[in-house]
Amino acid sequence: MAIEAISGVRCRAEALEPFIAGLLAAAGADRPSADAVARSVVDASSRGFDTHGVRLAPWYVTAAQNGHVNCRPEMTFERKAPAVGHIDADLAFGHLASYRAIEEGCAIARETGAAVITVGRSSHHGATGCYTLAAAREGFAALGMSHANAMVVPFGGQKPFFGTNPLSFAVPAPGEEPILLDMATSSIPFNRVMLRRATGTRLPPEVAVDGSGRATLDPNEARAVRPLGGADFGYKGAGLASMIDLLCSAFTGMQHGATIEAAVPGAQPIRIGHFFLILHPASFQLIELFDARIGAFLRDLRAQPAAAGEKVMAPGDPEKAEAETRARDGIPIDLVTWGALRRLADTLHRPVPEATEP
Amino acid sequence: MAIEAISGVRCRAEALEPFIAGLLAAAGADRPSADAVARSVVDASSRGFDTHGVRLAPWYVTAAQNGHVNCRPEMTFERKAPAVGHIDADLAFGHLASYRAIEEGCAIARETGAAVITVGRSSHHGATGCYTLAAAREGFAALGMSHANAMVVPFGGQKPFFGTNPLSFAVPAPGEEPILLDMATSSIPFNRVMLRRATGTRLPPEVAVDGSGRATLDPNEARAVRPLGGADFGYKGAGLASMIDLLCSAFTGMQHGATIEAAVPGAQPIRIGHFFLILHPASFQLIELFDARIGAFLRDLRAQPAAAGEKVMAPGDPEKAEAETRARDGIPIDLVTWGALRRLADTLHRPVPEATEP
Repeated sequence: MAIEAISGVRCRAEALEPFIAGLLAAAGADRPSADAVARSVVDASSRGFDTHGVRLAPWYVTAAQNGHVNCRPEMTFERKAPAVGHIDADLAFGHLASYRAIEEGCAIARETGAAVITVGRSSHHGATGCYTLAAAREGFAALGMSHANAMVVPFGGQKPFFGTNPLSFAVPAPGEEPILLDMATSSIPFNRVMLRRATGTRLPPEVAVDGSGRATLDPNEARAVRPLGGADFGYKGAGLASMIDLLCSAFTGMQHGATIEAAVPGAQPIRIGHFFLILHPASFQLIELFDARIGAFLRDLRAQPAAAGEKVMAPGDPEKAEAETRARDGIPIDLVTWGALRRLADTLHRPVPEATEP
Repeated sequence: MAIEAISGVRCRAEALEPFIAGLLAAAGADRPSADAVARSVVDASSRGFDTHGVRLAPWYVTAAQNGHVNCRPEMTFERKAPAVGHIDADLAFGHLASYRAIEEGCAIARETGAAVITVGRSSHHGATGCYTLAAAREGFAALGMSHANAMVVPFGGQKPFFGTNPLSFAVPAPGEEPILLDMATSSIPFNRVMLRRATGTRLPPEVAVDGSGRATLDPNEARAVRPLGGADFGYKGAGLASMIDLLCSAFTGMQHGATIEAAVPGAQPIRIGHFFLILHPASFQLIELFDARIGAFLRDLRAQPAAAGEKVMAPGDPEKAEAETRARDGIPIDLVTWGALRRLADTLHRPVPEATEP
């Protein structure tokens, strides 16, 4: 899906990240939690991943204020087997637990070549790609998954059962930012429904359903979304969602996504699991050969003949272009989100950073 | 996609497997190669996975006859890191290399909790699910991937670049056969185009293109297929195909799929890579808890309210039902395939097993 234009204010990432961290800290989050959430949402927005970016910051600040997430967690890490580690997130922000998972996973994978880190008793972690990208920026490849509460109708079903269960893969690329795949296993993430409510735009056909399971284009009527693959091949999206649900539950100790309920409707759901696989490329191949293969793939793919008006791109290419624009012009923030952030800043007595008005 | 009815003969798996192994051996394959290929194609067909089942047997026998695959390989296994092993398949049948990968992967994962096995210098291995299923039948979970020569047009592109790059995941389920996801990252695998040529049926809309990149319903005109997700969300299928291409090339030492060409048009392409992740459930959780989670997921999913005329199923459920029917009635084989097998049996002086005529 193309990156959607947002009409609103623009704010520089360097100002936005400490602003959001400051709001979270003022709302009760300890420093590591506040920093992890702010780092994640600003990283996502700086790459044009707006569904999981700054738009979610007010929700996280409210979760901290209301104590729906443990803002002063005592997370524990256990090495369950030579290539397996587990993080008990102590009901913390999923962002903090997931950055920690990547750190632990990279340290183990450097020794063992491959490492799996499971995270249990966590919460929503924003964009899964923030964590696989963090690993890839350190020279590792990473596969990341998270399950979530029910938002996606199973293939042939009527009511939501799966989370939008994202899958992300990142791998270092020579001379440029890593290749990054970061996708919901539904056609659209539910956060895109939320974003369209904020921007007042309609949904694509056949991707969302209302409360009675009927397709709808109205983001305000949408109550659930459909698995990737649509009417004919949605069993594939549902199959991927099942795989992710199982890896994030049976392997992490959590229950499957459909059992997860927010303590308060609309509040941050907890007892979510995440699953990460970290690979140390130098344990697989001479790094020069590895880089050459990745580089050749990118050159060949980007040079493919395109259909009229199209361009053949690698995963993450649209976001790389957008990141350059946003580094120069600032991050666009819709007015609903900006208003919410300003109100929170007012309540929490925090200064609001400079933003360019539309 | 529902399992398609096949009009043709029926033959029992117990007779079919030694028949196909015998043809391969007579065509020059050593015993392990012949047995691995026969085991894989009959396993696939016994579960209704006909696109990658017995239909491919004549192609493999011809590859053995023509020496396009190394029928007497000297495969080597190297433990590259504590949790990473690599198989150099010596241009063998991918089936033999992939069953070996699962054996080695399970042995390592029993020690380390998680293991990655890469396979290089391999060839087409049929249905990736045969190998993840073999692991799950031994109590392990497995993720398997293979890249292949160009058959799938990239999102926004005109010419094939990706293989149909399958992804498979299998996990043991308490009291029943494992849960099995086995899917091409295109809407349909190119083998379904081939199957429809054999059965004389048309293709679903918007999944295949002709030589000039235009959509076609005619399996005889189809030259390539499109990534999962269609016109709106095909970048997701293409993203998965990219991930699989990279894991099966840069990590295995092979080149990306678009560089792979069959030595002879229509012949078995070689220098293919596969990627397997094996997980040892008991290294993650108490096995009783693990089983309880998987069982609860299955019960809850299968009990979901269905749309009119539909049934909500778990990955692999349609194949489980079909496997029961086929164990009772035999495996259906279309007449094009059956004719080819009979001709090969004639040439190679092998007896043809009893088959029920239509």
